[in-house]
Amino acid sequence: MKFGLFGSAQAKRGGGPDVDSAKGYHDWLEFNIEAEALGYHSAFAVEHHFTGFGQVSATINLLTYLAAQTTTLRLGTAVMVLPWHNPVLLAEQAATLDLLSGGRLDFGVGKGYRYNEFEGFGIPMEEAGERFEESLDVLIRAWTKDEPWSHKGKFWNFKDIIVEPPTIQKPHPPFWMGAGNPKTIDGVAARGCNLLLDQFAPVKVILERIEMFRNAVEKRGRIFNPNEVGVARGLYVAKDFSDRDSAIERRIAARARVDNLAQRPDGANKSSIMSYDDTAETAMEAALFGTVDEITEKVSKLREGGVRYLLLSDGGSGIEGLRKFSREVMPVFIDSDTAEAAE
Amino acid sequence: MKFGLFGSAQAKRGGGPDVDSAKGYHDWLEFNIEAEALGYHSAFAVEHHFTGFGQVSATINLLTYLAAQTTTLRLGTAVMVLPWHNPVLLAEQAATLDLLSGGRLDFGVGKGYRYNEFEGFGIPMEEAGERFEESLDVLIRAWTKDEPWSHKGKFWNFKDIIVEPPTIQKPHPPFWMGAGNPKTIDGVAARGCNLLLDQFAPVKVILERIEMFRNAVEKRGRIFNPNEVGVARGLYVAKDFSDRDSAIERRIAARARVDNLAQRPDGANKSSIMSYDDTAETAMEAALFGTVDEITEKVSKLREGGVRYLLLSDGGSGIEGLRKFSREVMPVFIDSDTAEAAE
Repeated sequence: MKFGLFGSAQAKRGGGPDVDSAKGYHDWLEFNIEAEALGYHSAFAVEHHFTGFGQVSATINLLTYLAAQTTTLRLGTAVMVLPWHNPVLLAEQAATLDLLSGGRLDFGVGKGYRYNEFEGFGIPMEEAGERFEESLDVLIRAWTKDEPWSHKGKFWNFKDIIVEPPTIQKPHPPFWMGAGNPKTIDGVAARGCNLLLDQFAPVKVILERIEMFRNAVEKRGRIFNPNEVGVARGLYVAKDFSDRDSAIERRIAARARVDNLAQRPDGANKSSIMSYDDTAETAMEAALFGTVDEITEKVSKLREGGVRYLLLSDGGSGIEGLRKFSREVMPVFIDSDTAEAAE
Repeated sequence: MKFGLFGSAQAKRGGGPDVDSAKGYHDWLEFNIEAEALGYHSAFAVEHHFTGFGQVSATINLLTYLAAQTTTLRLGTAVMVLPWHNPVLLAEQAATLDLLSGGRLDFGVGKGYRYNEFEGFGIPMEEAGERFEESLDVLIRAWTKDEPWSHKGKFWNFKDIIVEPPTIQKPHPPFWMGAGNPKTIDGVAARGCNLLLDQFAPVKVILERIEMFRNAVEKRGRIFNPNEVGVARGLYVAKDFSDRDSAIERRIAARARVDNLAQRPDGANKSSIMSYDDTAETAMEAALFGTVDEITEKVSKLREGGVRYLLLSDGGSGIEGLRKFSREVMPVFIDSDTAEAAE
């Protein structure tokens, strides 16, 4: 199995002159630099805007700084929200990261799901799907065409352009897409993209989605590679049960805050990421919150269901949690992979 | 005096599988890392698109990587062309660089002058001025407002946003603007911005423009600071006169190539940067091309005219040229500053 990370740095504004507003970003960088040394495979960072609590907005820039401080870590976006970006400028920025990092970019893309972000940018949320499709087409051409090309679309026009610099990964960095229902999962397979599954879905739902994706890939005559499905999960390595239970409570409160940012005034945001129940029981089931033994058992269950690539989101146990996980949980699953390969 | 650098990395596309397309970027980074050690004050990088010869497009990203590898070097854009960018995304990207670098961003901005770039982006060149002004207003609000704000403009709308992360430099990173005539120079002073003067203008013109800027600043009751004018100049530290003359010839050919990208089909691009004669004589007058003695004399002349901050653009003598300049030219002018301060 492979274990990556998924999360956000934090830099809130308006803290006054005594507050080191860069600390959250530098802490996140240190965290990921050590994670690389501990054997983690990747760092995926979110893109969000106008949160009021300082989530990362310029994701590719932050990853570019991390690129300069690491050598093997894959650098992922989870996800860049295409409807908000000029696709050619985005292609240039992402290619620059891929080039500078020696081909380590994993390019997660999405349509966006938070209402307040679309409102903020003055872009109707209803256009998200069409904007996403148009931008994806432009991105692929920007990365693959060596001769001048033009584009006349609904939202963007480009004329006789060659987009520079080139990416290192050919034909282009892998695309990763979130999806949560049969139609969207089939769309990811149709595009030949990798799949990101969210951190709140129950395990049963995750395993069903992997199965759907496998079928969608295989019915197109391709070989399904389980490394091409990244499953996000919250991680909290608890000292004991009571420590674990407090962490679960904090997790539920944090999620309610994000749901408020995402919801539309009419309550009509039907994004699958907002459709799950959110109780201590469901949170405990979905998240890797618990003692080392409990977490090992949860990872085991995911592995048996076909999960090979976990993206861990720190639920508060911080770098010490990552260290424990890498020492006490990872080796169990690296051994089991080796045993399987030897069979 | 202070000495900074001004230039572009290069990463051409379509070189085939054997070509290391990242080499130009990494060479540029190494160049600037050593420049910091040699005592250079800043690295300003251009923003250009669709050149076909690989000039830097995602300037803030490249500077962000350089930020991670340096500690004192000022990181400048020369210039970000505002008409092509969503001003809020740009504010986030630039703030991220300022935050990560500990407040080292010098934010050069401009309207753009190359016709083929406007064509490529599908943005009428006639809108450049209005787009520039609107974006500049949005940028300043994005960086300075801690409470939600909205913007309804001709080109952009934003609603109830707080832009994160915050910049380190307060109220915001310094703006630098290119300008070439009395009206635009007065506009730079009116905005309270720093001034960038181009590398092709004859020395006489440069000194006149500094004088105009000084008057424009002082008539507004502010104190003129000569460090707030950056004068770009080509640098080539030649072995001898014949080496120098070949370098001048190459410089003229390179400039003709760029003029072709910039010119409109009707020849109506009247940007001041395209208005100078381009002969061996004028190039020799404007550029710091020559032996160490010749270059020292040229810098002396600039210094006597009031120049205190030079931005050197490598004309081909590379890192060896920078080393020689820092050993044999810089000390003369650092001494003269010290002597002046002691008077």
